[in-house]
Amino acid sequence: MTIEDILSDAKRVVKQVVPDHVEITAIDFEGPTIVIYTKNIEIFAESNDLVRQIAQQLRRRIIVRPDPSLLSPSEDAERVIRETIPAEAQITGIFFETETGEVTIEALAPGMVIGRHGAVLNEIKKKIGWAPKVVRTPPIPSKTVDEIRQYLRTIQDDRQQFLKTVGRKLAREVPAGENYVRLTALGGFRQVGRSAALLSTRESKVLIDCGVLISEDNGSPYLNAPEVMPLSSIDALVITHAHLDHSGLVPALYKYGYEGPIYCTPPTRDLMSLLQLDFIKVAMGEARKSAYDSSNVRRAVANTIPLKYGETTDIAPDIRLTFQNAGHILGSSIAHFHIGDGLYNVAMSGDIKFEKTWLFNPAVNKFPRLETLVLESTYGGYHDVQPSRHDAAVQIKDVVRRVLSRGGKVLVPVFAVGRSQEVMLVLEEAMRNRQIPEAPIYLDGMIWEATAIHTAY
Amino acid sequence: MTIEDILSDAKRVVKQVVPDHVEITAIDFEGPTIVIYTKNIEIFAESNDLVRQIAQQLRRRIIVRPDPSLLSPSEDAERVIRETIPAEAQITGIFFETETGEVTIEALAPGMVIGRHGAVLNEIKKKIGWAPKVVRTPPIPSKTVDEIRQYLRTIQDDRQQFLKTVGRKLAREVPAGENYVRLTALGGFRQVGRSAALLSTRESKVLIDCGVLISEDNGSPYLNAPEVMPLSSIDALVITHAHLDHSGLVPALYKYGYEGPIYCTPPTRDLMSLLQLDFIKVAMGEARKSAYDSSNVRRAVANTIPLKYGETTDIAPDIRLTFQNAGHILGSSIAHFHIGDGLYNVAMSGDIKFEKTWLFNPAVNKFPRLETLVLESTYGGYHDVQPSRHDAAVQIKDVVRRVLSRGGKVLVPVFAVGRSQEVMLVLEEAMRNRQIPEAPIYLDGMIWEATAIHTAY
Repeated sequence: MTIEDILSDAKRVVKQVVPDHVEITAIDFEGPTIVIYTKNIEIFAESNDLVRQIAQQLRRRIIVRPDPSLLSPSEDAERVIRETIPAEAQITGIFFETETGEVTIEALAPGMVIGRHGAVLNEIKKKIGWAPKVVRTPPIPSKTVDEIRQYLRTIQDDRQQFLKTVGRKLAREVPAGENYVRLTALGGFRQVGRSAALLSTRESKVLIDCGVLISEDNGSPYLNAPEVMPLSSIDALVITHAHLDHSGLVPALYKYGYEGPIYCTPPTRDLMSLLQLDFIKVAMGEARKSAYDSSNVRRAVANTIPLKYGETTDIAPDIRLTFQNAGHILGSSIAHFHIGDGLYNVAMSGDIKFEKTWLFNPAVNKFPRLETLVLESTYGGYHDVQPSRHDAAVQIKDVVRRVLSRGGKVLVPVFAVGRSQEVMLVLEEAMRNRQIPEAPIYLDGMIWEATAIHTAY
Repeated sequence: MTIEDILSDAKRVVKQVVPDHVEITAIDFEGPTIVIYTKNIEIFAESNDLVRQIAQQLRRRIIVRPDPSLLSPSEDAERVIRETIPAEAQITGIFFETETGEVTIEALAPGMVIGRHGAVLNEIKKKIGWAPKVVRTPPIPSKTVDEIRQYLRTIQDDRQQFLKTVGRKLAREVPAGENYVRLTALGGFRQVGRSAALLSTRESKVLIDCGVLISEDNGSPYLNAPEVMPLSSIDALVITHAHLDHSGLVPALYKYGYEGPIYCTPPTRDLMSLLQLDFIKVAMGEARKSAYDSSNVRRAVANTIPLKYGETTDIAPDIRLTFQNAGHILGSSIAHFHIGDGLYNVAMSGDIKFEKTWLFNPAVNKFPRLETLVLESTYGGYHDVQPSRHDAAVQIKDVVRRVLSRGGKVLVPVFAVGRSQEVMLVLEEAMRNRQIPEAPIYLDGMIWEATAIHTAY
């Protein structure tokens, strides 16, 4: 089936399912999704069944959006929103997402934005066409999240074009015949650092993680393996979580010819670019040449297609991806690949934590079907026994108490993303319960920003 | 080091080691070996130490040959041999090997060829320049062995050229830096049939076996894997033994672009071409298209560099190969690869038998160094218990006795190479010891020829 066939098929199905008086203005691919533009978005909103029927018949993800002509220009819309919402709501930000026709309103008192029975929101929607979404302003503003949002707004048109290209590549025709599934270990197997693996079929190539081994001069995974090269032949890049041993060389891929999408969770996108920019900074500080510069990091952000846990999406003509919570850090995920139509299922665990932590639920360990599981095994050796979270907390509180009591200062060198936040939670709780004396806690800038990203999600 | 550097280095060392009155006429690469041509071959024959010294200083295999001007034309030489050797020796064949300057004399009474204290041989050598070698005429003449010998004689010049090309490729310069070793399973792992694996380093590619899965329409290993293609990029093809599940698609490689050498034991070369020609015949008989034709089989023979057990040779700039007995069938071998200078050692067992059989010694299981062993595991499952050779013999004798006693005929469908010969040995011994009645044994043509090859080696 060519792309044109799929689209004309989609038109036929839509015509058949949707009542005649509903005006459809366009149908197109956007990333892995078929997008239907309509002037009567309310009809679809009233009957969820319409979308379900179309999706089932086409066996594809469907999104219905208001025709752009229905949406007020964002400057006008922003003015209307500020006029309509009472000042007591204390709006801190308004973000338009052209891709979805949604507008996110960030406020200190979100209830006031919604209004009684949603009256205020409904009024806004009627006036501006955009679908309003309300979120509470996070307690710590994140520079990273703000900058990424702003950046994505400036490249809206390019991104629309990029998503269409991805969509068309996904819908390319696949020759019939025997398929196969192959997983190549490119780095991070029997070592910590430079995690990378290639999942390939006869038709498709997916790179899973692209980390860096920081301790080495050339800490790159074996990206020059013949089945990886050229980078432009890779369909999709999947990042399980933001730590640099899994994401550190992602921007370098764009420097050396990769042009495709990155699939990761929304927090992974933000944390990863924070850490990558820091990686460049550290290299400059040590007068080393960095493997990439900030323009490559921006390109990675521009090409990211964020996926929430549990959302299934096509990432290649014969591969579907679903992320599940991995319990390791914010946004960390197990990548589940469904290959062919029922041919094979592979899960790459990424880094996992199978214990409820102070921040996250334990890793998901139930999958509808799974033929191969690649499981992280760091600290999994016979003699690798780590103290329980309870014991570790007792220990750190004891140390802090002893050091503070003799007038000392406690230095806690931990990773900025994940560990820092856990340590802060323990110390905060201990101070609140008077288990340790109150004392100021100073944070490294990276930790502050990483924590801000945590509060944003 | 370029090839020219190596050769000029060789000239320097030879000049330094060899006495001045010895006339050296040429030094060149031939396959993995440096060949020294001299007009005073007797000096080297008298002092083994000369060759050893040169080989040690150059760290390469050295062969010394008489300058071609010293060798009589083969027609003249053959006449001289027949005149010099007494008729009672009953010569059955005379084979010249230009590559080595040797002439093999096959006779029913080899002692008469040698003469008292080697007098006849010495006389021949003095008269014709060639180094004579004597073998007893095998009890069953093998058409295959004869034809291959004749064929190789007709392509002598091309082959000389081919060996030089291989030699120059082997001596190519290798860039410094980190090397790696990679083994890709291409077929025959978790299945019987289409055995193939690729051993690759940063510099070199070696294909180990190239079998066919006869039961399948497309019984090829995954030769289209990106690290295999193009076939012309492969340095060497190593065949562990002649059965078609390890050698069946070798000629097809030459059809699709491979031009390099095959390394295998001498009997493997002969048995393999016998089985490959039969493979074509069977395909034609079933009106199927064969994956190759007899011209490809001839090309494979032409490109074979035979190696005896225990002979170590360079097969790529950073890989050395040594075959060891695998005990499975005639010529079957374990391929031991020494990679880099002390970097890594890999042994591919091929099919093995770790029990003394009626035909062969058990597989070698001692290696000076080994980091990775890939071991055949057919019949290695927990429930795979095979009868001992003694029990199997008792059983077949019992069956034969019962069937013959009631006037029946026994049909024994076994593989032509290996099993047939073992069954024949059991039946022959049983008849000789009157454990079963004497009866004629009829052989399929393939078995006859395979047995003839056995007696030739």
